[in-house]
Amino acid sequence: MMKEKGKLIVISGPSGAGKSTVVFKAMEGREDIGFSTSVTTRKPRPGEVDGREYFFVDLDRFKEMVENDELLEHAEYVANSYGTPRAYVEEKLDAGINVLLDIEVQGARQVHEKKPDAVMIFIVPPSLEELERRLRGRGTDSERAIEARLIRARQEYQEADFYDYLIINDDAEKAAKELSAIILAEHCRFHDRMQYLK
Amino acid sequence: MMKEKGKLIVISGPSGAGKSTVVFKAMEGREDIGFSTSVTTRKPRPGEVDGREYFFVDLDRFKEMVENDELLEHAEYVANSYGTPRAYVEEKLDAGINVLLDIEVQGARQVHEKKPDAVMIFIVPPSLEELERRLRGRGTDSERAIEARLIRARQEYQEADFYDYLIINDDAEKAAKELSAIILAEHCRFHDRMQYLK
Repeated sequence: MMKEKGKLIVISGPSGAGKSTVVFKAMEGREDIGFSTSVTTRKPRPGEVDGREYFFVDLDRFKEMVENDELLEHAEYVANSYGTPRAYVEEKLDAGINVLLDIEVQGARQVHEKKPDAVMIFIVPPSLEELERRLRGRGTDSERAIEARLIRARQEYQEADFYDYLIINDDAEKAAKELSAIILAEHCRFHDRMQYLK
Repeated sequence: MMKEKGKLIVISGPSGAGKSTVVFKAMEGREDIGFSTSVTTRKPRPGEVDGREYFFVDLDRFKEMVENDELLEHAEYVANSYGTPRAYVEEKLDAGINVLLDIEVQGARQVHEKKPDAVMIFIVPPSLEELERRLRGRGTDSERAIEARLIRARQEYQEADFYDYLIINDDAEKAAKELSAIILAEHCRFHDRMQYLK
């Protein structure tokens, strides 16, 4: 049997859903899952290495990448541009690595359109009330920031209808098992696998 | 969160693929997976109980069930008719049970058409050469029967393009893990689950 290609796994969900915990639990002890590295126009901070934290490019190069369709998705935050480099992702997938992208719904929609075989996963807390409790419990956000996050979460739920899977994170262990199961199941897709059979 | 409905899991694959071993390994210690019970026009054998081994019906009743669309699929073997009763399956699914159907490709296609949300899984040995070795190794089939099974397997591979998943059974433990992962992943489907969120 030939080596199977990796899967591009897109993960989104409101801040406070516990995405990172779930993802890191699912990755424990596995070398076949890795994150992508983003391209950014932001200047490197002390200690940051090009190609490790980010691929650092100037605005002209970034615009060129957008025009040449070299990015699977891109967005702006605080006057800087960020994007996911297609060639880098494809290289990892070809090497059999499952590549995780933790991005917002708008970026996820771009990836979904450019790579319809990407696996789209939305991770949410059990309810919006629980999300509110978690955000308040962190104690890091102002009342206004919490309100904004809740409004944003409601919007994202409305826009999320193109996702394939929904993980309800009421228990991080259970949620991580579901994430692992989704990745394994996606490797069993009939049409991907049929080509490996003689 | 409401109780999730069960999934209808259709399993097919050539005789000699090791389907039963994989299925029983995946079912170990789980009460949320069960087999369906078929309807048949065959006469009960001593010790067989109506509603346990089969639902026993006469040919008139069977024809009526076909006409009334009460069967998810049906087929004839050796002058007897067999079918999968829709109401019985739906009742189990509503109770949260994942219902397994181990049926041939033709019947599977009928189920796929009548219940598009059924999860279609094809289980195969690593190669047709390996299938031949296994069939010979069992020592139960005549040369002619083995040839017939291999021809049939080739046909089934050609017709199997409507399945969702392909499990290549080169290791029953691994294959059972894949089957379990597929069932769990299918319970994470976005549109099924979204309705359980408030």
